Amino acid sequence: MAERYVIGVDYGTLSGRALVVRVSDGHELGSAVYDYPHAVMDRVLASSGAALGPDWALQDPQDYVDVLKNAVPEAIRNAGISASDVVGIATDFTACTMVPVLADGTPLCELPEFRNNPHSYVKLWKHHAAQPHADRINQLARERGEPWLPRYGGQISSEWELAKGLQILEEAPEVYEKMEKFVEAADWIIWQLCGTYLRNACTAGYKGNLQDGEYPTREYFRALNPKFEFFAEEKLQHTIGELGERAGGLTAEAASWTGLTEGIAVAVGNVDAHVTAPAAKATNPGQMVAIMGTSTCHVMNHDQIFEVPGMCGVVDGGIISGLFGYEAGQSGVGDIFAWYVNNQVPGRYFDEAKTAGLSIHQHLTNLAAKQAIGEHGLVALDWHSGNRSVLVDHELSGTIVGLTLTTTAEEIYRALLESTAFGTRMIVDTFAQSGVPVKEFIVAGGLLKNAYLMQIYADVTRLPISVIDTDQGPALGSAIHAAVASGDYPSVNAAAQAMGRVIKDAYLPIEERSRQYDALYREYVELHDHFGRGGSVVMKRLKQLKREVSA
Amino acid sequence: MAERYVIGVDYGTLSGRALVVRVSDGHELGSAVYDYPHAVMDRVLASSGAALGPDWALQDPQDYVDVLKNAVPEAIRNAGISASDVVGIATDFTACTMVPVLADGTPLCELPEFRNNPHSYVKLWKHHAAQPHADRINQLARERGEPWLPRYGGQISSEWELAKGLQILEEAPEVYEKMEKFVEAADWIIWQLCGTYLRNACTAGYKGNLQDGEYPTREYFRALNPKFEFFAEEKLQHTIGELGERAGGLTAEAASWTGLTEGIAVAVGNVDAHVTAPAAKATNPGQMVAIMGTSTCHVMNHDQIFEVPGMCGVVDGGIISGLFGYEAGQSGVGDIFAWYVNNQVPGRYFDEAKTAGLSIHQHLTNLAAKQAIGEHGLVALDWHSGNRSVLVDHELSGTIVGLTLTTTAEEIYRALLESTAFGTRMIVDTFAQSGVPVKEFIVAGGLLKNAYLMQIYADVTRLPISVIDTDQGPALGSAIHAAVASGDYPSVNAAAQAMGRVIKDAYLPIEERSRQYDALYREYVELHDHFGRGGSVVMKRLKQLKREVSA
Repeated sequence: MAERYVIGVDYGTLSGRALVVRVSDGHELGSAVYDYPHAVMDRVLASSGAALGPDWALQDPQDYVDVLKNAVPEAIRNAGISASDVVGIATDFTACTMVPVLADGTPLCELPEFRNNPHSYVKLWKHHAAQPHADRINQLARERGEPWLPRYGGQISSEWELAKGLQILEEAPEVYEKMEKFVEAADWIIWQLCGTYLRNACTAGYKGNLQDGEYPTREYFRALNPKFEFFAEEKLQHTIGELGERAGGLTAEAASWTGLTEGIAVAVGNVDAHVTAPAAKATNPGQMVAIMGTSTCHVMNHDQIFEVPGMCGVVDGGIISGLFGYEAGQSGVGDIFAWYVNNQVPGRYFDEAKTAGLSIHQHLTNLAAKQAIGEHGLVALDWHSGNRSVLVDHELSGTIVGLTLTTTAEEIYRALLESTAFGTRMIVDTFAQSGVPVKEFIVAGGLLKNAYLMQIYADVTRLPISVIDTDQGPALGSAIHAAVASGDYPSVNAAAQAMGRVIKDAYLPIEERSRQYDALYREYVELHDHFGRGGSVVMKRLKQLKREVSA
Repeated sequence: MAERYVIGVDYGTLSGRALVVRVSDGHELGSAVYDYPHAVMDRVLASSGAALGPDWALQDPQDYVDVLKNAVPEAIRNAGISASDVVGIATDFTACTMVPVLADGTPLCELPEFRNNPHSYVKLWKHHAAQPHADRINQLARERGEPWLPRYGGQISSEWELAKGLQILEEAPEVYEKMEKFVEAADWIIWQLCGTYLRNACTAGYKGNLQDGEYPTREYFRALNPKFEFFAEEKLQHTIGELGERAGGLTAEAASWTGLTEGIAVAVGNVDAHVTAPAAKATNPGQMVAIMGTSTCHVMNHDQIFEVPGMCGVVDGGIISGLFGYEAGQSGVGDIFAWYVNNQVPGRYFDEAKTAGLSIHQHLTNLAAKQAIGEHGLVALDWHSGNRSVLVDHELSGTIVGLTLTTTAEEIYRALLESTAFGTRMIVDTFAQSGVPVKEFIVAGGLLKNAYLMQIYADVTRLPISVIDTDQGPALGSAIHAAVASGDYPSVNAAAQAMGRVIKDAYLPIEERSRQYDALYREYVELHDHFGRGGSVVMKRLKQLKREVSA
């Protein structure tokens, strides 16, 4: 019998990547990347050249189809397999990335009359121009004591479906009226593959406020804006698809785009971070997966539902069907290290790194590792990009305490590494205190390459750290879902055990170092609570002043 | 009638500088510098090569005499005048710099039996090895409610006479016993010039705890150590000389060293910071002189005595005779800017500065000046070297709040410039609140060259800023004292008006900018009080941890 293969397609912010994977054991045979021709439109609209406002971020949905047409055939060629041996395809996407469409799935931006209307395009996850709308959404929800609010740690984001929808209504009512469905790109791409629209449980819950089968009420939406009353019922509500479920069979048209066989399984849509959990064989309660890159996203399953203060959200079947999926995050991690290296490190360190044949990050890490814990006398707050969990406050900012005339660049670098580990411990501790204990910490993403950083995380959190054993975690996670949709495995969990790749216990906490870090963590907590929980609002006032004088 | 000249000799940490000045108008004719052959002995004792302990700093008094032998004749040659037209000489010195001597002024380190005993040498101002002794001195004074303690802002320094004396007693009792006088180098050098020991009112008050004609009591000294009971009476107490007074006539021996005429006036000794006030024509109440270099020393006269919290001290006749001299300080100013440039500024800024033909400090200043006040969203605490006034706490450390992923190196540089201005405003405001209003701020020292920094100080303090108009402020100040001692002027004040050099109102506050800085200053005050006044002792714990793990 011929080997069976599946394809996972990972839709990122600037490109899509297709990966060919063997069903039997998860072996990766070949991949290909296709850059979106329109990339991110954040300054001008490509069709008209018109300027976009600050914090806008749009995409053209045709680019997503072009990934199917280009990256999938190329990945199959690179894998050296026959397309006829591919039995399923699945995708993961950035979220919340929203496409306004007609009832048949046609994006409004493809209608001639809307071609130059920016609100008819895809609003990318990092479109932040709906912050005023999000502020009203949160304010009203708090005032009304909306029961769904605690499911999102007490605050929802300007990135999510409600804020993006309200912005369209109020800034482009003609687009809002024409829009028959407001669809996650994660689901829209599946619709293109199999001709069926299913709303995946993950984004419907995390980004679309669906909790216990209910959206926020008509009354709530009406109070936001009378014309918004039926937003959920008319624009969002749709049949839910469970993760790993077969959404449908590949259409003849999609077969022609990709070279795959018509009718093969297409899985329900999914999200990049969440799909990484099965790729790392981390789908059981207590296994927290951290995708650590410029920022960190934490996802974890649990068999009960609890309201964890400051989490991003908890969704029934949000990571895998049958468990409650929890999500949290740190707004800045690798971004902070990159900012520091680009803005605060003298040239001699770069010269030394070059001479030693090391990256500047590895060179600074090596220097920083020479000191005993606490020897630098520093503690930093990792809030350069705000705090996503557990404070949910983007008016906070980075801080460092303990500078002296002998403080070195590598000491501050190490304090920044440590500060992100402290931020993670704050999340882990908050989950545990809320009834959702973390027993293992599994790392995916680019930062897992820094072994010293990983050891700091193990020591600071007192958790064993496992690391994903592939550079293509999300695409592998999608391929796992394809192998479930194709019927090759009975569940995502079973497929993950066979196809996932992880190095277990790559780093173990060293108790003596954990005790030493406890002392520094106490200082972090004191600063965290003082600046983040109302002791002082100096950070907010500084941001306000900055906005005033910049205006 | 021939022109009359005076010589001022400024004894610094590493060298002595002689300056020839015309009596009639303060014109500077020539100068010369002589580096101390022994420099600062802070690692080994030169005579034996024996290692010194941490925080030790010694000098050899012969070096001071060698300045007279070398720099004075060379300055006269450079001035192109006749030595016979010099009518007086005066000096200023670092303080508290202490020489243990026999009754005739012979330094103990010149006795063969003490040549290899480090305690027999000059303890330089920055000898910090007597900190444990200072801690006991302060603790006991607080417990006993010693009335002199508030005259020093509530705490005396390990640099001062009592701490240095107690260290000698307890670590080298044989030196303590042999020592017949414990003399400020400021007075010892005058003794060498005119053969007369007078204890100048400035150091006797600021460094020797002489207040209202009294030293601390026998009972107090006995409680510190029974053998210390007569320390003040036996080792310190001596006839006080007022500043500007004639200490005596130049001896034949000193005339032979210098080429000057035997019998010319030798003024009472003085201190570098204090002598700068008349050099800048700033001897009246309300005129605060700031000598701004690596650190800043503030001196100001007032006609009444008040206890200002956190000042360094107040001394009757401490700056000029007849007024109460107040002193305060900031432990790190230029040092902080230098640390930042050496440790936190990327190479591209140095390249740009080189291309533009600017110093790195000027380049960063120019970049920083482009932003509106508050646009950087930052506030820093200028405590990288601790806080001398008004918190008097060297366990504090530098801090910066408000960092984001778009913060630039020049923005942080500017926040550091501003933080030192805020530190100055805190001192100015504290003086005003204590009954000692500041009406004009006169700057001497190297940092006056940074015009943008000066404008920040004017805007932040709302004070007109005048700047001294010489690079040789202390030496000119000494020359002014020489011209009083020679009888050419009736008072230091009168001599200062004729010979001092200042550019009045070089920078004036701009009210709109002052109002904008008020907002940032409020944030500085909040952080200052939180970290400095007991809201949080995180800085002290970080220092303690650093010491523990470094030990």
